[in-house]
Amino acid sequence: MIRVVKIGGNVVDNPEALAAFVREFSMMPGPKILVHGGGKEATRLSGALGIKTTMIDGRRVTDEATIDVVTMVYAGLVNKRVVAKLQACGVNAVGLSGADGHVITATRRSPEPVDYGFVGDIATDGVNVGFVEMLLGNGLIPVFCAITYDGDGHLLNCNADSVASAVATAVSEIDDTELIYCFEKPGVLADAGDDHSVIPHITPELYQTLKQTGVVSGGMIPKIDNAFKSISNGVKRVVIKEASALNNETQGTVMSL
Amino acid sequence: MIRVVKIGGNVVDNPEALAAFVREFSMMPGPKILVHGGGKEATRLSGALGIKTTMIDGRRVTDEATIDVVTMVYAGLVNKRVVAKLQACGVNAVGLSGADGHVITATRRSPEPVDYGFVGDIATDGVNVGFVEMLLGNGLIPVFCAITYDGDGHLLNCNADSVASAVATAVSEIDDTELIYCFEKPGVLADAGDDHSVIPHITPELYQTLKQTGVVSGGMIPKIDNAFKSISNGVKRVVIKEASALNNETQGTVMSL
Repeated sequence: MIRVVKIGGNVVDNPEALAAFVREFSMMPGPKILVHGGGKEATRLSGALGIKTTMIDGRRVTDEATIDVVTMVYAGLVNKRVVAKLQACGVNAVGLSGADGHVITATRRSPEPVDYGFVGDIATDGVNVGFVEMLLGNGLIPVFCAITYDGDGHLLNCNADSVASAVATAVSEIDDTELIYCFEKPGVLADAGDDHSVIPHITPELYQTLKQTGVVSGGMIPKIDNAFKSISNGVKRVVIKEASALNNETQGTVMSL
Repeated sequence: MIRVVKIGGNVVDNPEALAAFVREFSMMPGPKILVHGGGKEATRLSGALGIKTTMIDGRRVTDEATIDVVTMVYAGLVNKRVVAKLQACGVNAVGLSGADGHVITATRRSPEPVDYGFVGDIATDGVNVGFVEMLLGNGLIPVFCAITYDGDGHLLNCNADSVASAVATAVSEIDDTELIYCFEKPGVLADAGDDHSVIPHITPELYQTLKQTGVVSGGMIPKIDNAFKSISNGVKRVVIKEASALNNETQGTVMSL
């Protein structure tokens, strides 16, 4: 079983949360891959440099100044900080952008209807699974940031959730794969105000009901849609849980067929 | 023969010079490793963020704000820019800081007599040559920035010349190794004002004479001292030449026994 874990800004921006996560991740058995975000830090650096941050539908409009900012923050500051902390916990991590080892190629998004600038979408065959397999086979733990490239010298900004999904789908060719999205909440909640109302298991059938009854709504819908898309593309199961509960098998919401 | 090439700010800061270098590097046969600087860009970012840059004896005093800046610039912006350009020229590059694959460990420099902050010196056995060999054996081209780490979770600022020398010395255990320092001048000049006065070959004996007669002076002395130190530690030869003449065997100054 290969586990692909995605962490977001709530973990990488908080030294204590990151330290706790790194300990959990280091104890997780078997081959594993980490994918991280870092959007808050990028927004902070843009602000300090007087570069305006524009988000449309949750995606950062990435002009020339902004692709430099996100490359610095995601591939530099956050990626190396995470790798150094993992190494200190005995995890032989290797930080990667999509350009490294030609590991993830993406296509720059069409400027119509919205021009996002240097934003890329990962192609179906965009992950160089041979390179990932070679690293895992040598006991190395890939740590991906959300910077990809077009194969022609240009870096592209991507979305860490999409990178995690693409990588998990690709490595599911090698072995059974579990994709874990670390979340601020202990899972998908039946009652948004009650952290004890985690729905332990969502099948495609239950998901339809949950949507119809409005239990699942808003930003949770694209997350679960993506989860089932990953599953229909080969991932065995997708789990949404808290970063601090990574090794707690009883926590979180499991999505599977 | 393994070739370790070091490029500095005059190449990485200039898009045309970088494009020309990348073409030359892609045509260089055999296993190869790239090490890059990026100091000017780091100074620029520090300035834009209102962080004061202090250099003592050519080394950047690296406080907490500055280690973040150099990590962003060296390991993020410059490293990924170079890797993406190399990939576009068919070079299967993988960008690395010292933390990635635990490849270079350094020791934080003593705060006495000068407190440089988060500045590291690479230990004699600080290069994980097995990891480098594994990458080369898989047809991958390591691209090192000058960020190292202490093995205990802390990133350290290093000097790209020192990284190049340490890496070349380490890989000389695997195969004959040539270390090439790309320079703004076509080599070591007998007459500083005449670019046609390149000294083609310097032996340790000639070097003593050149120093005594004052032909070699100033900033060239630590460079050549380092070159002969690398040679006495196992590197076959060290070449100082222009980046654009990488594959021109008749250009440059060769240092060897």
